[in-house]
Amino acid sequence: MHLDHQRIAEENEAILSAHQTQWDCFRTVSSQSDSYWEECITRLSAMQIAIPSWALGTGGTRFGRFPGGGEPRNLEEKLADVGLLHALSGHAGAISLHIPWDIPDDTAAIRQQAEELGVVFDAVNSNTFQDQDGQLQSYKFGSLSHTDAAVRQLAVTHNQEVIDYGKALNSKSITVWLSDGANFPGQQNFRRAFERTLDSLQQIYDHLPNDWRMYVEYKPYEPNFYSTVIQDWGSSLLLASKLGPKAYSLVDLGHHLPNTNIEQIVSRLMMEGKLGGFHFNDSKYGDDDLTVGSIKPYQLFLIFVELLEGIASESFAWMIDASHNVKDPLEDLMQSVEAILIAYAQALLVDRQALNAAQEDNDVTLCQEIIQQAFRTDVRPLLAEVRRRNGAALHPILLFRKLQIRSALIEERGSKVLATGL
Amino acid sequence: MHLDHQRIAEENEAILSAHQTQWDCFRTVSSQSDSYWEECITRLSAMQIAIPSWALGTGGTRFGRFPGGGEPRNLEEKLADVGLLHALSGHAGAISLHIPWDIPDDTAAIRQQAEELGVVFDAVNSNTFQDQDGQLQSYKFGSLSHTDAAVRQLAVTHNQEVIDYGKALNSKSITVWLSDGANFPGQQNFRRAFERTLDSLQQIYDHLPNDWRMYVEYKPYEPNFYSTVIQDWGSSLLLASKLGPKAYSLVDLGHHLPNTNIEQIVSRLMMEGKLGGFHFNDSKYGDDDLTVGSIKPYQLFLIFVELLEGIASESFAWMIDASHNVKDPLEDLMQSVEAILIAYAQALLVDRQALNAAQEDNDVTLCQEIIQQAFRTDVRPLLAEVRRRNGAALHPILLFRKLQIRSALIEERGSKVLATGL
Amino acid sequence: MHLDHQRIAEENEAILSAHQTQWDCFRTVSSQSDSYWEECITRLSAMQIAIPSWALGTGGTRFGRFPGGGEPRNLEEKLADVGLLHALSGHAGAISLHIPWDIPDDTAAIRQQAEELGVVFDAVNSNTFQDQDGQLQSYKFGSLSHTDAAVRQLAVTHNQEVIDYGKALNSKSITVWLSDGANFPGQQNFRRAFERTLDSLQQIYDHLPNDWRMYVEYKPYEPNFYSTVIQDWGSSLLLASKLGPKAYSLVDLGHHLPNTNIEQIVSRLMMEGKLGGFHFNDSKYGDDDLTVGSIKPYQLFLIFVELLEGIASESFAWMIDASHNVKDPLEDLMQSVEAILIAYAQALLVDRQALNAAQEDNDVTLCQEIIQQAFRTDVRPLLAEVRRRNGAALHPILLFRKLQIRSALIEERGSKVLATGL
Amino acid sequence: MHLDHQRIAEENEAILSAHQTQWDCFRTVSSQSDSYWEECITRLSAMQIAIPSWALGTGGTRFGRFPGGGEPRNLEEKLADVGLLHALSGHAGAISLHIPWDIPDDTAAIRQQAEELGVVFDAVNSNTFQDQDGQLQSYKFGSLSHTDAAVRQLAVTHNQEVIDYGKALNSKSITVWLSDGANFPGQQNFRRAFERTLDSLQQIYDHLPNDWRMYVEYKPYEPNFYSTVIQDWGSSLLLASKLGPKAYSLVDLGHHLPNTNIEQIVSRLMMEGKLGGFHFNDSKYGDDDLTVGSIKPYQLFLIFVELLEGIASESFAWMIDASHNVKDPLEDLMQSVEAILIAYAQALLVDRQALNAAQEDNDVTLCQEIIQQAFRTDVRPLLAEVRRRNGAALHPILLFRKLQIRSALIEERGSKVLATGL
Repeated sequence: MHLDHQRIAEENEAILSAHQTQWDCFRTVSSQSDSYWEECITRLSAMQIAIPSWALGTGGTRFGRFPGGGEPRNLEEKLADVGLLHALSGHAGAISLHIPWDIPDDTAAIRQQAEELGVVFDAVNSNTFQDQDGQLQSYKFGSLSHTDAAVRQLAVTHNQEVIDYGKALNSKSITVWLSDGANFPGQQNFRRAFERTLDSLQQIYDHLPNDWRMYVEYKPYEPNFYSTVIQDWGSSLLLASKLGPKAYSLVDLGHHLPNTNIEQIVSRLMMEGKLGGFHFNDSKYGDDDLTVGSIKPYQLFLIFVELLEGIASESFAWMIDASHNVKDPLEDLMQSVEAILIAYAQALLVDRQALNAAQEDNDVTLCQEIIQQAFRTDVRPLLAEVRRRNGAALHPILLFRKLQIRSALIEERGSKVLATGL
Repeated sequence: MHLDHQRIAEENEAILSAHQTQWDCFRTVSSQSDSYWEECITRLSAMQIAIPSWALGTGGTRFGRFPGGGEPRNLEEKLADVGLLHALSGHAGAISLHIPWDIPDDTAAIRQQAEELGVVFDAVNSNTFQDQDGQLQSYKFGSLSHTDAAVRQLAVTHNQEVIDYGKALNSKSITVWLSDGANFPGQQNFRRAFERTLDSLQQIYDHLPNDWRMYVEYKPYEPNFYSTVIQDWGSSLLLASKLGPKAYSLVDLGHHLPNTNIEQIVSRLMMEGKLGGFHFNDSKYGDDDLTVGSIKPYQLFLIFVELLEGIASESFAWMIDASHNVKDPLEDLMQSVEAILIAYAQALLVDRQALNAAQEDNDVTLCQEIIQQAFRTDVRPLLAEVRRRNGAALHPILLFRKLQIRSALIEERGSKVLATGL
Repeated sequence: MHLDHQRIAEENEAILSAHQTQWDCFRTVSSQSDSYWEECITRLSAMQIAIPSWALGTGGTRFGRFPGGGEPRNLEEKLADVGLLHALSGHAGAISLHIPWDIPDDTAAIRQQAEELGVVFDAVNSNTFQDQDGQLQSYKFGSLSHTDAAVRQLAVTHNQEVIDYGKALNSKSITVWLSDGANFPGQQNFRRAFERTLDSLQQIYDHLPNDWRMYVEYKPYEPNFYSTVIQDWGSSLLLASKLGPKAYSLVDLGHHLPNTNIEQIVSRLMMEGKLGGFHFNDSKYGDDDLTVGSIKPYQLFLIFVELLEGIASESFAWMIDASHNVKDPLEDLMQSVEAILIAYAQALLVDRQALNAAQEDNDVTLCQEIIQQAFRTDVRPLLAEVRRRNGAALHPILLFRKLQIRSALIEERGSKVLATGL
Repeated sequence: MHLDHQRIAEENEAILSAHQTQWDCFRTVSSQSDSYWEECITRLSAMQIAIPSWALGTGGTRFGRFPGGGEPRNLEEKLADVGLLHALSGHAGAISLHIPWDIPDDTAAIRQQAEELGVVFDAVNSNTFQDQDGQLQSYKFGSLSHTDAAVRQLAVTHNQEVIDYGKALNSKSITVWLSDGANFPGQQNFRRAFERTLDSLQQIYDHLPNDWRMYVEYKPYEPNFYSTVIQDWGSSLLLASKLGPKAYSLVDLGHHLPNTNIEQIVSRLMMEGKLGGFHFNDSKYGDDDLTVGSIKPYQLFLIFVELLEGIASESFAWMIDASHNVKDPLEDLMQSVEAILIAYAQALLVDRQALNAAQEDNDVTLCQEIIQQAFRTDVRPLLAEVRRRNGAALHPILLFRKLQIRSALIEERGSKVLATGL
């Protein structure tokens, strides 16, 4: 299943005049010049979000999983799905692979397929939270932090191999999410577990090519329910600082305790020059992995407000990391991309100069007015215009449904297949 | 300080053409007919939110309080402040009194002042969480739930007197918020505390006029930090059901444990015919009493989506209950009113028929699209039009600042006064 | 693998004198009479906790599962495991089955096996949170609350069949845990979902034998992450009340929002005569399903303090519901049983008369002294004495290890088997 | 009111034989040698906990305060109260002052009084969260982080003066708790607020004598409800590291988000050599400031288990920081001291060697057995023996009541006084 820009442009034609009206009205009621909007469009066009290979199939919970049809059966089909997302949305020009599931049989062919789709290879991801068939040592009691040096070595070697796979695909970074921790008080010596983890990470770090980055993810709980080795941004920053300049912290929005002010963490990590990237999703309770923007869209906006303090000078890794349990994964990902772009666009609209002045004056009412003025703006016409100019669909989900893409995928792949790596 | 509609209309004039453009564009990009918008305007115009008398001064915390200037020194000045808010916003046509601070010296004069301002008397509020000077028994260990019958009687009598004060002002309801509870395990027998509370409430209930309502508020903690007698909607509903048809539950948005799905509680209470009213505020951690809509605007919208299932047939009490610690209280209240109206207007825009159909089909993607389509709409031109038609200010806060109302109030009342009841 | 009382008594012999010293000292330092302790022993001896069939194998999370060896492969082996637990601890004389996994091939044989082991059949459990192979309709979007009547019928029929299986084994109750809910705002109409659920439950209720009970469990989230149909005790109580006198609420300790005062909920449900039973486990973050007593032993004690207000007149269903991810399941269950008995024994030691007097006096210091006096008492000698008298092991886990029971089970069942139903 | 050791010894006499029986039994059932217990007694005897001057009167909330009688009216009476606590408990040999309330009129006299009571001066505490009468600039919008350099200077100078007051009393440390933060998104630039705070702290740090320490406290919220400048251990550690070797982080148990694993934070800070001290209290919801050990005694124990990894080589500042709203403050403090000592003693009992071995083996069941073996031990006879040897009361609270100390204090000080600084 492939979708070319020609076809999309034809489909856009039918709703172009409605869009033009909205886009005209949008600019009319704004107080900004055309050049202001052109700059916005340029910045928004550049926004590319990596799609993780594991998010292309239906996800589940410990209580069960209800797969849909037409899910990708291999790396080629995963790439094809990301290609569809990118063609429709214009902002999904990257894929993030999960090893061992996404080891390419033919690297050159995969690279060529990606190039044709306009998709690059973002961070590669290792997996030491499950045992693979025939694995000699078990990760039951940890991997990089394990008390047994042999298990640690297995996990280190796996991560080094993941880097090698990534190099072959021109990826430039590895994300390490560690499930290591303890379920019970007393199970683990906190300090020794941290020190062993640092030592293991150092060996992986030493294997990094010079132009690579390592992202150290943190998470307070799950699958361990008493403690985790890298439980918060403080521990992640300690590790990234001790490892060296190529190591950064990675923020997954769902990996925080209740009520955490995530946007402030973003600011702290940027201040220290150690914010590496993001895993976007949303949650109401824990690491719920819901569609980003579906529960707390204002928080997402506030995070982008912070990011824009540093986004000009820094390069961040953006990735969606959600679990699509009850929606079509591709539709869910289109909603995710849209929500991220909305938050980004609204954050761009914040009048920074006025905000700084109001902050200096402690004019709290005005600070809130300025911030909410941006959030309350309906930026969808702007985003549609960005898509139109980049050859993407004015209404990605509507077009996905109109073209019956899921049906075509089911026809091609079957209705009972399981995406690998889930 | 008084603000008449003539003056406001003149001020509106200068920005009327900009508003007209926004309002035209708003309707142009919508797919709705003029009659649709007229009905919206009618419904929105009818929305009146009660201002609690204690919110007109600067609030504080246990760590301190930093008062501003020009705060109202008595009931007349509190009414005047609400009159200003109503003149500016068009949606603040009610005041909620707190006894003992707001006992009128001259009831007839107060009623006349209120009538001239277009302000009615909403629910009256009792106070049994503090001891008043010369009070014979203490509420240190509770009031309506106290182990000592004499303390309970004192609290019951106080509540009955509050009803009497309210009758004189043509109020039609009393809100009972009970701080009773325990700080430590073992301090209180949960069951007997509940039974004593029910008995006390029954005596207050029996004192209610026939056309009155009693609102039973719940709160999980603070000022008691282990347990409260009416800790959640379940206990509130039990009490309201046992008391009788004039008793209802009252939902304060800040009175919930972390991550609570408040909109579902709203639905449950409506299903049982026992949702009585709302205290609007916002919070990130506990009962933070921040400006409603300043932290979780999407949650506020979702609550209104639920409310609209029943709002046609029911009559609810709407009240702001926030603590204005760092903003000018009147500006903060204008932001609160605006946030409530935005959420209400967005909820009106939800396409109910389409949503119901999508829900029946379990088309989760579409459900989210329908809901977010409404939330992402910038309804501010609609609300400005509502204000314009009702003689209120197109931009209340801008006008408040332009007219230097706070300076005038400071001149009139002084810069060092303390609002009573704080 | 079978363990008879003779063998256990022999093993106890070697450590009997140490126990006797501890038991003597325990009574010496207490201020209680022998008859007081005899009554305690009688009450403690009667405490029997049901073991759920799914807890006998290694559990896991959505991220993976690391099975141990010697796990039971069928109902007979599950019963045998519970028999071992009961022989060792003296308090595990019941099993709770999960249908469809535990449908007996030969009901009479199973009943006889259970009788020989001194094990009865506690509540039976239905499963409508997963699709079984060949199932015509899917529970992907709910079961008892589903929008499609055919799916609801499937779920109702399944529950009725579960009751029938239970009848054949002389079970007297069914526990309904419903995973139904929504992952996203707008996905589900809260009210209609509740009404459909009530209607479905009514059909199951009508199928109950006269001497049966139905337990309605509640849970705030997971596997649905925005809302659940039976989200808290309030909704559970509403359902149980509407259904009739045979319906009760069931409290699972892990099914609460952060910071919930669970012991107060216990009191409320008892006050309404609707507390039916308990699922014991512990948690630090969410429904972590850790060993009961491993994280918050004081909370467990406080719950028993409340329960003892009603335990004389009521009959409750006690069940462990935990997930043993990193410990030997049988060892974990022995730790669970011990923790429950400790909390129960400590609660028995609370001087109720003194506590009531201190509560009436609002002598908060004394209330805390009385409560903590009980909690700080080391009741392990008392519990060992209870076990000794009932023919169980003085030190169950030590004996389990000394007898190398797990090795024997691995030899018998293999090291790579998976417990069914996980 | 003064209590001498002679009098206490006499009172102990009457219950000495009961104690001796308990102490004998305690040792009999333990498997430890006499020398083991002697070492425990030595270590426990050395434990001294500072009492903050503000905890000697009745505390309150934003909703009110219900003072008791006989509260200390000045620094001399506060010292006298701490002297009483120390005489009764043997573990309260330090006081922590709060400036401006505790500025001594006669430093030499105060030092002499303290010396006679066996009480030393622990960390001094500054206050920049309230405005004092006549203060030229206001802390309404912050102190050390304020946008206005003049306000920052005021706060810096105040802290430097607090150090000077401390020097005169031979204190060796200052604790800085900063209430600075924001109530609303957008109010504050996170990065600049942090940088200004660091700059201000550096000026205070530069004023420290060579043998002093500075403790940097963190807190996620309250009195600011959107963000605080030093929100968590990560930010506190950043500041302490940037300031220099005399700066440390301070952990207040109530200053964490829901479900935080505090014991792990303790371990992290110790690993970095930056754990400076503790504020002990307990909480169920937020910074509830309840009696330590009254809600989560197991967590308190686990914290001491971690502390004992470093307690030999490090010197920590121990302080109670609670608010006594419904108990007699002195009784509450005696319960606090007892709870801390219990947790400490239980942590001493953990078999470290066995625990380390079990951790290395990933024998999770055994790890839990070892940890809980210690926690379940009733160490009260041991603590009573420690008190007896140090001339303190076998039962401090019983003796406090028997001697009617509160009545004597009311007689001396009056029943309507308010402790200063509350």
